[in-house]
Amino acid sequence: MTKGNINVSVENIFPLIKKFLYSDHEIFLRELISNATDATLKLKHLTNIGESKVEYGNPQIEVKIDKDAKKLHIIDQGLGMTAEEVEKYINQVAFSGAEEFLDKYKDSAKDAGIIGHFGLGFYSAFMVADKVEIITKSHTDAPAAHWTCDGSPEFTLEEADKTERGTEIILHIAEDSTEFLEESRIRELLLKYNKFMPVPIKFGTKTETLPKPEGAKEDDPAPTKEVDNIINNPNPAWTKQPADLEADDYKNFYRELYPMQFEEPLFNIHLNVDYPFNLTGILYFPKMSADLQIQKDKIQLYQNQVFVTDNVEGIVPEFLTMLRGVIDSPDIPLNVSRSYLQADGAVKKISSYITRKVADKLKSLFNNNREDFEAKWNDIKIVIEYGMLSEEKFFEKADAFALYPTVDGKYYTFEELTNAIKAKQTDKDDKMVILYASDKDAQHAYIEAAKEKDYEVLLLDSPIVSHLMQKLETTKEKISFARVDADHIDNLIKKEDSSISKLSEDEKTKLDELLKEVIPSEKFMVQLEAMDSNASPFMITQPEFMRRMKEMQQTGGGMFGMGNMPEMYNLVVNTNSELVGEILNTKTKKKQERLINQSLDLARLSQGLLKGEELTNFIKRSYDMIK
Amino acid sequence: MTKGNINVSVENIFPLIKKFLYSDHEIFLRELISNATDATLKLKHLTNIGESKVEYGNPQIEVKIDKDAKKLHIIDQGLGMTAEEVEKYINQVAFSGAEEFLDKYKDSAKDAGIIGHFGLGFYSAFMVADKVEIITKSHTDAPAAHWTCDGSPEFTLEEADKTERGTEIILHIAEDSTEFLEESRIRELLLKYNKFMPVPIKFGTKTETLPKPEGAKEDDPAPTKEVDNIINNPNPAWTKQPADLEADDYKNFYRELYPMQFEEPLFNIHLNVDYPFNLTGILYFPKMSADLQIQKDKIQLYQNQVFVTDNVEGIVPEFLTMLRGVIDSPDIPLNVSRSYLQADGAVKKISSYITRKVADKLKSLFNNNREDFEAKWNDIKIVIEYGMLSEEKFFEKADAFALYPTVDGKYYTFEELTNAIKAKQTDKDDKMVILYASDKDAQHAYIEAAKEKDYEVLLLDSPIVSHLMQKLETTKEKISFARVDADHIDNLIKKEDSSISKLSEDEKTKLDELLKEVIPSEKFMVQLEAMDSNASPFMITQPEFMRRMKEMQQTGGGMFGMGNMPEMYNLVVNTNSELVGEILNTKTKKKQERLINQSLDLARLSQGLLKGEELTNFIKRSYDMIK
Repeated sequence: MTKGNINVSVENIFPLIKKFLYSDHEIFLRELISNATDATLKLKHLTNIGESKVEYGNPQIEVKIDKDAKKLHIIDQGLGMTAEEVEKYINQVAFSGAEEFLDKYKDSAKDAGIIGHFGLGFYSAFMVADKVEIITKSHTDAPAAHWTCDGSPEFTLEEADKTERGTEIILHIAEDSTEFLEESRIRELLLKYNKFMPVPIKFGTKTETLPKPEGAKEDDPAPTKEVDNIINNPNPAWTKQPADLEADDYKNFYRELYPMQFEEPLFNIHLNVDYPFNLTGILYFPKMSADLQIQKDKIQLYQNQVFVTDNVEGIVPEFLTMLRGVIDSPDIPLNVSRSYLQADGAVKKISSYITRKVADKLKSLFNNNREDFEAKWNDIKIVIEYGMLSEEKFFEKADAFALYPTVDGKYYTFEELTNAIKAKQTDKDDKMVILYASDKDAQHAYIEAAKEKDYEVLLLDSPIVSHLMQKLETTKEKISFARVDADHIDNLIKKEDSSISKLSEDEKTKLDELLKEVIPSEKFMVQLEAMDSNASPFMITQPEFMRRMKEMQQTGGGMFGMGNMPEMYNLVVNTNSELVGEILNTKTKKKQERLINQSLDLARLSQGLLKGEELTNFIKRSYDMIK
Repeated sequence: MTKGNINVSVENIFPLIKKFLYSDHEIFLRELISNATDATLKLKHLTNIGESKVEYGNPQIEVKIDKDAKKLHIIDQGLGMTAEEVEKYINQVAFSGAEEFLDKYKDSAKDAGIIGHFGLGFYSAFMVADKVEIITKSHTDAPAAHWTCDGSPEFTLEEADKTERGTEIILHIAEDSTEFLEESRIRELLLKYNKFMPVPIKFGTKTETLPKPEGAKEDDPAPTKEVDNIINNPNPAWTKQPADLEADDYKNFYRELYPMQFEEPLFNIHLNVDYPFNLTGILYFPKMSADLQIQKDKIQLYQNQVFVTDNVEGIVPEFLTMLRGVIDSPDIPLNVSRSYLQADGAVKKISSYITRKVADKLKSLFNNNREDFEAKWNDIKIVIEYGMLSEEKFFEKADAFALYPTVDGKYYTFEELTNAIKAKQTDKDDKMVILYASDKDAQHAYIEAAKEKDYEVLLLDSPIVSHLMQKLETTKEKISFARVDADHIDNLIKKEDSSISKLSEDEKTKLDELLKEVIPSEKFMVQLEAMDSNASPFMITQPEFMRRMKEMQQTGGGMFGMGNMPEMYNLVVNTNSELVGEILNTKTKKKQERLINQSLDLARLSQGLLKGEELTNFIKRSYDMIK
């Protein structure tokens, strides 16, 4: 038996780093700036604990393009390296400087927010550069060092004359990567990955207008000066304590995160937990647009203020991916598959913590300012209804704040609703019937009929509400939902008292035969009802069950195959109405038919079923009638 | 100055491979099966050219789970390795066996379809295993070798007693990766990545029913036997020549690719090119559903029959991402950023080749069977219209097959259309006006009015068609599109002849004043027109420009801010209609108002603008009128 060590051949590792390290080459800039930030924060820590004697001052990181010479510079004022340290950290690939540093200063360094792993990240420079230089001066007295490497394993190391502490990385950008010499491209990357990093990043200069000197004339131009252009905000709102932030601070931070969003957010939720995991962040409820797809992927995930991704699937419960904002946590594993994420215990805890926080915030918003909460309900209901359907815990908590608006703009909680309607809307089988409309305009006549009985009609118009009704019917006791046009109102809530018919049984049979001759049976089921004589003579209804199943199919779920069933309508004929009496008593068949057809057209019109040629003909006939 | 070599420390490389090599750990199985396939195809090549004396036979790859021992086996019957080769290819990480092999057998090997790079892919095993064994017997006479490594750089290598040629890889699955011991998970991965790999892959066994022996009774159970369960199809349709495939073969392959799709594809396009790049594949036009988002990411990208991704953004022009099917090319760079892909010359060529092939196929389908093409138009128009808008080359070619259907179900090419309508639909300024409707039902009355003039009305109802009209208007000469309800038909196509008004100027002024008293000016602009006396007395129109701009905004584009403009309607009053004469001559103001309001309601009904309470009241009034 032979024993041995696996030999990693350096000649082959370089091309591999270039090919495999990151699928996105642009990541190099994030890595180099993370290193520069580390070096700066490490120095801060050392000066804090007295291990470095230099003045920490207000260090910044500078990014500079030299387009003519095809160079990109990243310059920090951090710790710097001695020649020995360059040997150790740079020449020995994958030797993690940060790990060693953390080991040494374990407890005190943790709070200093030191980010990355020096070493491998640096080599991502070779994804875009064919030569890289490091000029670095340690914060100690050691002389400066100059390291150069052209991407082959060979490097040179010599003394340099740099006198200020810190590290300058110079990338000689490769032919196939000249995009990284464009100011606009670098600005884009800095804003994408480094917008909230904790050390100020300078990129170019900008002109600032100064106050005019005393005694200047009105026409004199105001003096200006060139100042450093700092591209990031090192102290973003989510890193602060909620107690230190005003409502406007949250709004301003939203604007910072989404400069292209013109709408204000509805409200925000500040996340802040350090046990059993670390997580900070601010979530915003935006105004929802109709297109749910567009809403997604808006929450940004950071790790210690470095942007990681805007795909938070698996970390945030799905119903909350419609929100916006920031989550920052060092505890979320980044380079693993989504399926692993979903099974990870820590991630599950994070997800349920966020769900709980959101539910608590909604409850307190509701309790503290119900009027405002009601005003925002229309914009937030989709998120809440989706949450109630997908997360059992959230469903339970939502009982305290989920609202059921009426067509008249009143808002009930479920408990308030049942108290309000119990007396009137309980049928003879002791079941409480909750009436609703999905469209105030389209179902206007039906809503009016219900209101005449003094019933409450909810306005439930979000696309997934049919699923929620289904869930409520199975969770709550003895309730059922019925859309106002599902049947005649007396049948929707059946009371003991039977109605009195003006027609005799004979007359009813005659009427039924007459109607069935004229009305196509494949389109409408005729249903004779003895209703109030003032109620509509003809009325088209659509049974609740079938319609709801079809709706549920359209938004996913429901019973299989229902989506393809034909629409089913009933024609309710009010045997007590004057017009129906007239139809029966009209002498000529032709006139009877005309009356029935015109009434049917009006009933179809009321249900939105009269269209195209039939509508055009109806209108023509009506013009003739008014002449 | 010091010179030196960068030192890659092996201790640190292993954890890095685990962390960085692939963000998705499941990839290990694809890599190991690619290696096994390589080893098999290499042996085939060597036996073909006489360099190996063994019988190639019908080798297969076997994947086996040993759940109790927490092991996963991948066994091939390929080339195998000697101890020396293990030393060379396995112990020297990132030494690419395939590259060396290809160098040696350059030209002959190219056609043998040898896939990957041995070496690094193998190490992905350590992403899921904490110990890996290789037991391998070369096709030469050398003894078998047994290599073991626990993920530290240390390995052992000893002789083994394996007698059959080939390599067996044994993964001792790590605690955090036990998902890969589940049969369902492995099956899922094999079907995802290896469904069309060129060597048969055995995974478990299945029971096959045999014919009953002669003389068996009816009740006797049919005999069965256990047979190898081959999970892949080594010869998928796209690897064959189009000439060898029937229509049914294409349909069956579609079913193989999308087992959950119940709809048949409309037609397919077989891609086959080997210069200046290699590309094969089959694209399918599916029936489009209303939700365009759901359509995306359905084309699968393969590299030599290994599945790579179903995100072909950047490789296929965007309008074709709505198609389904397979593209297989070794020439598409895989591990680079999307922005790089879009700038890559080879990829651009591939993209424009695919566009051209699709255009050619559409043209030949149109030419060979126009009737069938017309029948499918509704399902394919979105793709074609989107292509015409986004790819200039496609726009030019589409002139030959893009169709413009009429409301009566006739289909014109653009040229046919202009020939058909030139004589009648050219206005006095020599501009040809193309009339269209977006909804046959909703615009029925307006369509009828146009038809009475013997004009053709197109039915253009796809969501992006307003953009296409805009483009056609600027590309073609002297044409303009107008929706039938954009104005009175005589104004849409203005001819020289002026109409004769029944009303005097005085009467017109009187009528105008009367109408403006009753009709709210913020809702309708009143416009008096001397039209045919049989035409509708009142008619509501919506000017083309504003409406189209608003529509374009809704689907992206158009003029900024137009989306928020209020809807604008005109009320066209036919001064020659009998009813309008009656309105003028009616004595009481009250009766005049009633006539105007009822006529306005009918006009609004015709344009779909009478809703809610107003509709309910209209219906009530109408019931009263027929009594």
